[in-house]
Amino acid sequence: MTPISGKTRVYGILADPIHHVQAPQRLNEYFASIGFDGVMIPIHVRPDNLPAVVAGLRGMENLGGLVVTVPHKTAILALCDEASEVTRKIGAANVVRRDAGGRLVATMLDGEGFVGGLRAEGKAVEGKTAYLAGAGGAANAIAFALVGAGVTRLTVANRTRAKAEDLRQRILALHPAADVRVGSEDPGDHDLVVNATSLGMRQGDALPLDVSRLAPRQLVCEVIMQPRETPLLLAARERGCAIQYGAPMLAAQVALMADFMGARAA
Amino acid sequence: MTPISGKTRVYGILADPIHHVQAPQRLNEYFASIGFDGVMIPIHVRPDNLPAVVAGLRGMENLGGLVVTVPHKTAILALCDEASEVTRKIGAANVVRRDAGGRLVATMLDGEGFVGGLRAEGKAVEGKTAYLAGAGGAANAIAFALVGAGVTRLTVANRTRAKAEDLRQRILALHPAADVRVGSEDPGDHDLVVNATSLGMRQGDALPLDVSRLAPRQLVCEVIMQPRETPLLLAARERGCAIQYGAPMLAAQVALMADFMGARAA
Repeated sequence: MTPISGKTRVYGILADPIHHVQAPQRLNEYFASIGFDGVMIPIHVRPDNLPAVVAGLRGMENLGGLVVTVPHKTAILALCDEASEVTRKIGAANVVRRDAGGRLVATMLDGEGFVGGLRAEGKAVEGKTAYLAGAGGAANAIAFALVGAGVTRLTVANRTRAKAEDLRQRILALHPAADVRVGSEDPGDHDLVVNATSLGMRQGDALPLDVSRLAPRQLVCEVIMQPRETPLLLAARERGCAIQYGAPMLAAQVALMADFMGARAA
Repeated sequence: MTPISGKTRVYGILADPIHHVQAPQRLNEYFASIGFDGVMIPIHVRPDNLPAVVAGLRGMENLGGLVVTVPHKTAILALCDEASEVTRKIGAANVVRRDAGGRLVATMLDGEGFVGGLRAEGKAVEGKTAYLAGAGGAANAIAFALVGAGVTRLTVANRTRAKAEDLRQRILALHPAADVRVGSEDPGDHDLVVNATSLGMRQGDALPLDVSRLAPRQLVCEVIMQPRETPLLLAARERGCAIQYGAPMLAAQVALMADFMGARAA
């Protein structure tokens, strides 16, 4: 990394808690790899303080942008001046660019990161059918990205069925012709099977879907990065499925995040 | 430098303009030298935005503190919750610590930095007489520090004589027994001769004092760091005086700043 000077452009990640975040390491490695004089720092903000902190960051002229993570992804959206239609529909953002004058432009890249992580490993999404477990923030972003990337059918499964139905309706509002269904625990009859719940992060978690229905021709994907080998992935491999780890989703987002925030090689 | 992670404590320097600041380089070198997991970043803030930015920084839980420089040294004081009596008397601060809960404690270390820079080179201040050119921010800090460090007589000279008199009165309010005088351009009859004006930064600047009155037994000191060899220092050396460059004043402050902001080896 170039030593930080008065000319270094600054980026931050907003999170609470903060200790576990990986974005500073990943973005700073990326900035160094493209020869960009920028630095990402952790910004630990409690939910109550988010509006004041964001108002302050508007006045920081050399701030290029922010990565936003738990628990601020939904709240950040209302504090920004601009967001794409799909970001508004998702109802959450994970990256903010600070334009001249302090104008804040938000976007949600979790979905593109997920699709990009598959593409980076030669795994196409277009023309496939997809099963998605979860209807929270990550699931919302991935659902919109999968439909946007051309899956022919998307099935959303969630313990609280109404949340899955709500997500389905918001996707249909933007993509009226899409084939979006609300499903059960059974992931059978889909090319892609995606876990976008947090089940598998902690020891003793239930499985996010019925693994007995997995078949060898399916590709089973995680959003969880820690642990790398979740019980779902272990079960999927056992049943002969191809698997996709969680890490490529963030790795694929790093360049997208940097680019959205204007951090490009000179 | 340790790679920045979610556990790294963050420090900033508030300035406008920002490109020339040296604090990130110096503090980051210092943090690395003591094995402290901290990072200092530049924060470019225009005067109008200072209150909102500082209010936002109060809500940043992992912010350890701020170095403050031109043009914010006076304005920052009113935005902090606590400052020492001498800092209040100086009327300006250059370092702020963020305590738990967002409480901001300000201090002015320019003077200690100046005296510390002399001490680091084995040059004592105690028992000496001192001539000080200037009555601005740096001069105020240095004047209080010289009196605090035990000079037996301090003469303040300034083009606008009323500003020198005002500084004299504020020193006497805190140190009623001190021998503080308002002087002329003539630095004769003092052990230390200090330039605390900005004269010498730009080519074609007038000299800050009457160099024809300098004598070999005097120590002539600069606060200017760029250029290293100011016309005053060149003239002083020509006349056989010992000289003190501007750089040690900042170098001596780095450790004081870090310590005030709680950045200490584990």
